Amino acid sequence: MAIMDITVIPIGTETPSVSEYVADIHKVLKKYEGKVKYQLTPMSTLIEGDLKELLVVVGEIHEVPFQKGIQRVATNIRIDDRRDKESTMEGKLRAVNEKLAN
Amino acid sequence: MAIMDITVIPIGTETPSVSEYVADIHKVLKKYEGKVKYQLTPMSTLIEGDLKELLVVVGEIHEVPFQKGIQRVATNIRIDDRRDKESTMEGKLRAVNEKLAN
Amino acid sequence: MAIMDITVIPIGTETPSVSEYVADIHKVLKKYEGKVKYQLTPMSTLIEGDLKELLVVVGEIHEVPFQKGIQRVATNIRIDDRRDKESTMEGKLRAVNEKLAN
Amino acid sequence: MAIMDITVIPIGTETPSVSEYVADIHKVLKKYEGKVKYQLTPMSTLIEGDLKELLVVVGEIHEVPFQKGIQRVATNIRIDDRRDKESTMEGKLRAVNEKLAN
Repeated sequence: MAIMDITVIPIGTETPSVSEYVADIHKVLKKYEGKVKYQLTPMSTLIEGDLKELLVVVGEIHEVPFQKGIQRVATNIRIDDRRDKESTMEGKLRAVNEKLAN
Repeated sequence: MAIMDITVIPIGTETPSVSEYVADIHKVLKKYEGKVKYQLTPMSTLIEGDLKELLVVVGEIHEVPFQKGIQRVATNIRIDDRRDKESTMEGKLRAVNEKLAN
Repeated sequence: MAIMDITVIPIGTETPSVSEYVADIHKVLKKYEGKVKYQLTPMSTLIEGDLKELLVVVGEIHEVPFQKGIQRVATNIRIDDRRDKESTMEGKLRAVNEKLAN
Repeated sequence: MAIMDITVIPIGTETPSVSEYVADIHKVLKKYEGKVKYQLTPMSTLIEGDLKELLVVVGEIHEVPFQKGIQRVATNIRIDDRRDKESTMEGKLRAVNEKLAN
């Protein structure tokens, strides 16, 4: 399982607001429920799943602004892939919080 | 108010675990309470505040792994700075969630 | 044509040096010559090509540190995809340099 | 010496072209010649120098789109800071190229 952190920025939007694009991306993610877990943060979308599946999801959500008429998209992705033990969004938070509690 | 999304990756750690570095960064952030708001996500730390203050915070938390003996650090930062209206972590989440509820 | 900017950071390397991993990634990229263009910069690798092909390349070069025994990899990707006109690495540099010459 | 890789994306530009913003950022960087080294790539601007100086530069070039009337800016930064030996843009490229030549 890998965890991905992604932002998809539409360029050439006339206004500074981009929340409608983020909402449309989450509508696409709903189709992947059961295959990946995802979570909206104030700065990006986090997606946990098999790396191959995550790359398929990248390809699809990167298209969302183009489908709305935008001509340029800047997508930014961080992938955290750990294979010595099962790594999950929940487990990562817990590991830090346990150390903070001590 | 700007919002920053930051990861500080220590390079040359012997093991794949880095949660102790993240915990130490959050101990540093505690000193800034009242000046900035911050939030841990499974993939990064989000910090909201005045941009000048945020850049001071970057300088300080980027040093944390060095103070623990690490010799190389890869820091990754996204800054979202919107000035046509007050932008906050809470407000950004709400804007997307309202659009998803319709 | 999209342009991608990628860093693949191995975590848990014992030493701060990672240039051997970057070199191995470029050996993988050689296999894609003709399909994508690529360029090493001091901070990352830039790759130009069809977006679908670029995502295949991500999947492959992200594996390189694992093949060398590393157990955790942090990959960071920026994608710049412009569709109102042909966008290339060379064309982007030229556009900025022309504006700087005026 | 640290090395920084930065993109400053104006949001709400009406058109997909952003090269004029990049050019204006390089005009600002000219003022720092002697203090930092910098280099334009097709995907970002690389800047080498003392970390404190680099953070001052971030604060200044992040303002450029606002000075041109833009109301929202998304800045993305990677910092590579290595302290066990002198690390430079030129030295990093050479280290990889030497390994590729073998």
